[in-house]
Amino acid sequence: MFASPAILRIFAGEAFVRQMLVFEAALARAEGRVGVIPAADAEAIATAAESANLDVERIFAESARAGTPAIPLVKYLTAEVPGDAKRYVHWGATSQDPIDTAMVLQAREALDILEGDLQRLAQACSRHAEQQRETVMIGRTLQQHALPITFGLKAARWLALLTRQLVELRRLHEVISVAQLGGAAGTLASLSDQGPAVVAALAEELGLADPGLPWHTERDRVGALAAGLGVLAGSLAKIATDVSLMTQTDLGEVTEAVEAGKGGSSAMPHKRNPVDVIMAVSATKLALAQVPLVLGAMAQEHERAAGGWQAEWAALPALFAYTGGALERVLGSVAGLEIHPDAMRRNLELTRGLPLAESLTTQLGLAIGRPQAYALVQAACERAVAEDSDLLPVCLADQAIAAHLSADQITQALDPAGYLGATQHFIDRALADYRALED
Amino acid sequence: MFASPAILRIFAGEAFVRQMLVFEAALARAEGRVGVIPAADAEAIATAAESANLDVERIFAESARAGTPAIPLVKYLTAEVPGDAKRYVHWGATSQDPIDTAMVLQAREALDILEGDLQRLAQACSRHAEQQRETVMIGRTLQQHALPITFGLKAARWLALLTRQLVELRRLHEVISVAQLGGAAGTLASLSDQGPAVVAALAEELGLADPGLPWHTERDRVGALAAGLGVLAGSLAKIATDVSLMTQTDLGEVTEAVEAGKGGSSAMPHKRNPVDVIMAVSATKLALAQVPLVLGAMAQEHERAAGGWQAEWAALPALFAYTGGALERVLGSVAGLEIHPDAMRRNLELTRGLPLAESLTTQLGLAIGRPQAYALVQAACERAVAEDSDLLPVCLADQAIAAHLSADQITQALDPAGYLGATQHFIDRALADYRALED
Amino acid sequence: MFASPAILRIFAGEAFVRQMLVFEAALARAEGRVGVIPAADAEAIATAAESANLDVERIFAESARAGTPAIPLVKYLTAEVPGDAKRYVHWGATSQDPIDTAMVLQAREALDILEGDLQRLAQACSRHAEQQRETVMIGRTLQQHALPITFGLKAARWLALLTRQLVELRRLHEVISVAQLGGAAGTLASLSDQGPAVVAALAEELGLADPGLPWHTERDRVGALAAGLGVLAGSLAKIATDVSLMTQTDLGEVTEAVEAGKGGSSAMPHKRNPVDVIMAVSATKLALAQVPLVLGAMAQEHERAAGGWQAEWAALPALFAYTGGALERVLGSVAGLEIHPDAMRRNLELTRGLPLAESLTTQLGLAIGRPQAYALVQAACERAVAEDSDLLPVCLADQAIAAHLSADQITQALDPAGYLGATQHFIDRALADYRALED
Amino acid sequence: MFASPAILRIFAGEAFVRQMLVFEAALARAEGRVGVIPAADAEAIATAAESANLDVERIFAESARAGTPAIPLVKYLTAEVPGDAKRYVHWGATSQDPIDTAMVLQAREALDILEGDLQRLAQACSRHAEQQRETVMIGRTLQQHALPITFGLKAARWLALLTRQLVELRRLHEVISVAQLGGAAGTLASLSDQGPAVVAALAEELGLADPGLPWHTERDRVGALAAGLGVLAGSLAKIATDVSLMTQTDLGEVTEAVEAGKGGSSAMPHKRNPVDVIMAVSATKLALAQVPLVLGAMAQEHERAAGGWQAEWAALPALFAYTGGALERVLGSVAGLEIHPDAMRRNLELTRGLPLAESLTTQLGLAIGRPQAYALVQAACERAVAEDSDLLPVCLADQAIAAHLSADQITQALDPAGYLGATQHFIDRALADYRALED
Repeated sequence: MFASPAILRIFAGEAFVRQMLVFEAALARAEGRVGVIPAADAEAIATAAESANLDVERIFAESARAGTPAIPLVKYLTAEVPGDAKRYVHWGATSQDPIDTAMVLQAREALDILEGDLQRLAQACSRHAEQQRETVMIGRTLQQHALPITFGLKAARWLALLTRQLVELRRLHEVISVAQLGGAAGTLASLSDQGPAVVAALAEELGLADPGLPWHTERDRVGALAAGLGVLAGSLAKIATDVSLMTQTDLGEVTEAVEAGKGGSSAMPHKRNPVDVIMAVSATKLALAQVPLVLGAMAQEHERAAGGWQAEWAALPALFAYTGGALERVLGSVAGLEIHPDAMRRNLELTRGLPLAESLTTQLGLAIGRPQAYALVQAACERAVAEDSDLLPVCLADQAIAAHLSADQITQALDPAGYLGATQHFIDRALADYRALED
Repeated sequence: MFASPAILRIFAGEAFVRQMLVFEAALARAEGRVGVIPAADAEAIATAAESANLDVERIFAESARAGTPAIPLVKYLTAEVPGDAKRYVHWGATSQDPIDTAMVLQAREALDILEGDLQRLAQACSRHAEQQRETVMIGRTLQQHALPITFGLKAARWLALLTRQLVELRRLHEVISVAQLGGAAGTLASLSDQGPAVVAALAEELGLADPGLPWHTERDRVGALAAGLGVLAGSLAKIATDVSLMTQTDLGEVTEAVEAGKGGSSAMPHKRNPVDVIMAVSATKLALAQVPLVLGAMAQEHERAAGGWQAEWAALPALFAYTGGALERVLGSVAGLEIHPDAMRRNLELTRGLPLAESLTTQLGLAIGRPQAYALVQAACERAVAEDSDLLPVCLADQAIAAHLSADQITQALDPAGYLGATQHFIDRALADYRALED
Repeated sequence: MFASPAILRIFAGEAFVRQMLVFEAALARAEGRVGVIPAADAEAIATAAESANLDVERIFAESARAGTPAIPLVKYLTAEVPGDAKRYVHWGATSQDPIDTAMVLQAREALDILEGDLQRLAQACSRHAEQQRETVMIGRTLQQHALPITFGLKAARWLALLTRQLVELRRLHEVISVAQLGGAAGTLASLSDQGPAVVAALAEELGLADPGLPWHTERDRVGALAAGLGVLAGSLAKIATDVSLMTQTDLGEVTEAVEAGKGGSSAMPHKRNPVDVIMAVSATKLALAQVPLVLGAMAQEHERAAGGWQAEWAALPALFAYTGGALERVLGSVAGLEIHPDAMRRNLELTRGLPLAESLTTQLGLAIGRPQAYALVQAACERAVAEDSDLLPVCLADQAIAAHLSADQITQALDPAGYLGATQHFIDRALADYRALED
Repeated sequence: MFASPAILRIFAGEAFVRQMLVFEAALARAEGRVGVIPAADAEAIATAAESANLDVERIFAESARAGTPAIPLVKYLTAEVPGDAKRYVHWGATSQDPIDTAMVLQAREALDILEGDLQRLAQACSRHAEQQRETVMIGRTLQQHALPITFGLKAARWLALLTRQLVELRRLHEVISVAQLGGAAGTLASLSDQGPAVVAALAEELGLADPGLPWHTERDRVGALAAGLGVLAGSLAKIATDVSLMTQTDLGEVTEAVEAGKGGSSAMPHKRNPVDVIMAVSATKLALAQVPLVLGAMAQEHERAAGGWQAEWAALPALFAYTGGALERVLGSVAGLEIHPDAMRRNLELTRGLPLAESLTTQLGLAIGRPQAYALVQAACERAVAEDSDLLPVCLADQAIAAHLSADQITQALDPAGYLGATQHFIDRALADYRALED
């Protein structure tokens, strides 16, 4: 319920085996090119790896005992390779080489999925930012009404956040796109002095970067990937939190789109639950739980870890799947969001003009100096509260204020739409930054 | 590879649906007994719930949209109930009631699995403690050789730890064995004044405790369960760490039992990897990652959470499955552990008697006072190091020492087996505590 | 700003040194009683330890290099002990023995502080539960209005949660109240066969339990303590979350007590921020971050850990201090909470009676069967929404409904105060459970 | 004991207040430049802010009540500003603006400290990589001996890791170097249409980037900073783990430099504890615990968070201080590391040549084909184990092997120094990458 189905497929056992076979094929070809193994044998291995139809369940059943899926994989791949070429399967590599490289290939596919959804979400936010740029609502700080904003500005700030995350996703794509090949102890000993050439050729075959040195136990790239996904999950949690709060019945400022079978209650027919953001919030929590796991697992022993590396096999797929699930849910919510400007206006007026007191003070201050203005407005506010009245009529009736400002000026100073500062500028800026990125 | 298959089955979709149906059956029977609904209808619902063969995949597909598996469950169960009895299905309950109660029933089954394996592990440790009580090895602190212990003492300390965890598991069993029934807002409003009687009857039907009040958003019991499993996982990590370190080729003090297809290397035929403890270490990390998730999710809003509760649905099964997986792996490792007393002895002697210097000082001090004894032994130690000799011949040849202690006394003072303090007492104590618990 | 000052004092360097000296005094006395060291020397050491005025800063400066505060502590304590008694200072103990025991003594003091504040908080909740037992408000689930509850019920559920936490705190007190004494490798080798007797006497001197075996690297008790505090922090987060949400300007159901200098805004004079619950939420997050640290550190090597144990020195004080800070803040908020029944009533009526539709259906169903009743009420609800009217006048004017229910019956069925189910029962139960515990 | 003193100073209360004053001075100057406030008043404020000697303790005492340090800060700063300029103090800003900007300024200073130490650590690793490039030792995977490497290669892999972290630190420096200025609700309402110009001028004054939009509740930059520090802490944990394992008495391959008062034992005079790496391991655990806290706190409400943001105030300083502490400790350990090539050689020979079997198989296979070669070598290995002999003499005496390889060839094939693959290449690569970065 919380994971992205598309990402689950990328990390399924079948796909993992397939990606390890992609590595074995590329390794053979690379070694053929460099001349480490005969070209014909290289091609035979590559062909077998690319067409092999291995028994995935058996491989994973044996993995549990072997402690690594690479050993049964190599065994069954070898059985598919004809004749003498058999002896060159997995030549020079260690278990961790295909496993890490397969993870890299899976991560790239998953990042592509995330990027697509992230673009769609940014697109939805840019639409709200544009369309709702004048929809006034109250800004809230520390759970309290503060000053007016517009819903367009809220969406623009989400957009700015997501635009930065798009940049970040592309950076992560580059960070993790490195091949892994080190052999049993990271020296590529059995490749004699041709190791580096094989690594370079392998990386080229796979469209990955040459890592320079093996990184079997230096997991900074994996840590950076996990950390980056965590920041994305946290960013989604921010948007989900905002939407969730605005859907409170008491606020009623937005609702998720109606859909059959969605958001009802088993006990209360009048309810319409914001299912997408609730599931999104859960999914971000589940995603974030994987981050410290991956970072904590970086303390890996010597040339191959005794537990920390293996934990990545479960943690990274979970992190991707839950982050993707959260993204799908936030997209589902935000893209179809019904916006209720009337409710926003009603909530804004709940405190009857008090958030605009600062605005009136500023205007009045131009005429009589801020201290005196502050005292007059403060007194008007207190009267409005005492009389349970809007601030506007109280101010209009106030002789001391009316002596310096016309009724129009007072009305304008207390108009939320007139006290929005740089709101339009910020919306334009967020839209421009997003469009610049997408072009 | 890291999760317990038995526990995965307990938390599989099918089993979850079955447990929710157990709740719905018990609820109907309870309401029949109390007189809230007609007895015949109660029985019709209970029968349908117990015999229903619902389409689990469809239920979960609809759950993703509904935001809860209880809504489709109740819908399809109702379709199975004949006639007028239909209207009393799920009577007075809210979605969270069957979901939480099903979780409780699953948790109890999973705790039983854990307890069984924990007993087996404790049994294995008690066997080692008994059989290896005199097998001398070096005790290590901060990675350094300290003083001699026996492997039996190490096993006895594991046993004492596990004995306490057995007590703790039973406590968790009790903590979590409570029914959940609160209705839409926790008031059981639609049961009028019969709510508490229904809760009591429901709890009785299920063999659970009456919670007193509903606990929809007061998740201390769930938090305590997660935290307790975390402590168990941490305890297993301690044992796995010790075994893992002792299996280092450089120490070679223990090895995991040989088994076909287990622990080999894809590159190096001479290797025998301690697969079980390595997988155990990974599994404990994966388990522990769930604990802060559950505790962090305790900040649940009002009468039903908007994300925190739902995250439990994925976190608790993962926590149980990984803890169970770690336990199976530690059991697999420890139960079949091959112990190498010769290697233990060899490692103990690596520093050539220096760890026993304190012992000799004490003996000598009885004769000439500690300060002078300390100075003499200290000098002997320095000579031993300088001459690359064992401490014993140096001391035997030392006139100042020999003036006060016989060769036998010196030899005895430098015998690791003679400087074990309360080792046997502690082993006996751990065995006695364990046996007292199991009787 | 987030930590409890009282608890910070308990874990300050001075207090830590003092508690280690308490251990050294008790150890000397215990060894004197058992006859391991001369009684006069024992008393000399104990007297020196109890009256020593050590240079705490110097001890901690040297600790950073020594890797443990016990080594400089023992050095400077020894300097304070007269004559031959010097040689018996710290006799048979290892650094970890005074450090762990001091931690136990500090934990007990901190638990007492927590218990006192927890009682005060429970008391405040019991007062609200009693006084507001009839104060009707809307129950909220998944951010949506559900059915009516009373504020007294909400407070009663907090109370039930806190009552369980009081029981838990007392359990933790017992769990952690164990002495630590194992000597260099956990064998008490230098105490020959008198080790266990010394441990027993030491425990008695300190009012702690005899641990049976040393627990230098078996940290389940510490893990259980951390986990238990985590559950307490999570429980406080639930209450803080509820209060924080109710203080939203849009809801305005409660406000924190006014106090000079508290809760103002640097920019907006009309704001009154719920400072205490906001700080409480922060403090619970800070507390919870320590729990996985302590649990993750349980994987301790051999007979003394190389990093995991030492991390406890910073993690446990932080966990206690932040949990205590959260508790003080929640107490500050809840004890002085201003409750606004009018706002609660206004919010309840926001959906104009719809949450009571279920109640009317039930009443009407008694006369004409539920299906027909459901259809009639459903139609009335739709009319009320379409006409922007309260549900009550629509139902009163509905001939089909009026044919079976009197105006009084309809009015009563739509009265929130009449559809509260077991609310009073639950309040009574929570109060009774709390009082039973406190008596 | 775990925190960096230099970084603690950067985040001390005094320094925090000073940085907020830097913000207030820069804000006044920016507003003076843009013409929002009179230039003379701007200068008066800036001068007061830069020379103010505020009572830090009083500010923080009031902060606890106000819920923010900015309110008392502004109050006391205003008191220092002469005449009419008072009214323009903090003009247009909200509490979060100086607090966030001060955090940015502190983070930059702390990153500089980290970078300096990181360079020193990389330098030490590059020295080891160069000097020990031929020092043969055993590579270890999954706790088992694998194939030979050199200590220089191990250091080179640390160096490659640290070089990437240096690049990363500089990226973080850029990520976090943004000003914060949004006013009460993020609209800069009281600056009318001059808000963006003021932000730009403020950023320029402080040498920071203009953020485009305010980021009060979009904490991706802070999350990225925390995550990046987490990756650094994890990287340090990897190195500390390696060193810690190599210092095991049983391995004895490295020891930390001797220093008075460092690494002794209160009970065992023969011990030399690797204090620095042990403290480093603890510090990395403490640092990593802060990362999920910061990421989890990203779910911030509306225009200012109710708890999540505030938690950063304690989490970020702790994260920096512990990461810095870990770095200092790893530097202390690695820079002064005593390396014991003899012990490395002894450990390498522990398995009597078996790790080189693969090398011999390869050589022999060139002559007679791999399958037959494998069988012959395998048999020789078994004989060596059975006879408790080195592999070399067994192979030299083996007629079937000697028929194809000379004694010299056999000896060479079994020489660890001859089976190091790309070791020298990798060392050169790591050194070159590091030097390229530093130039």
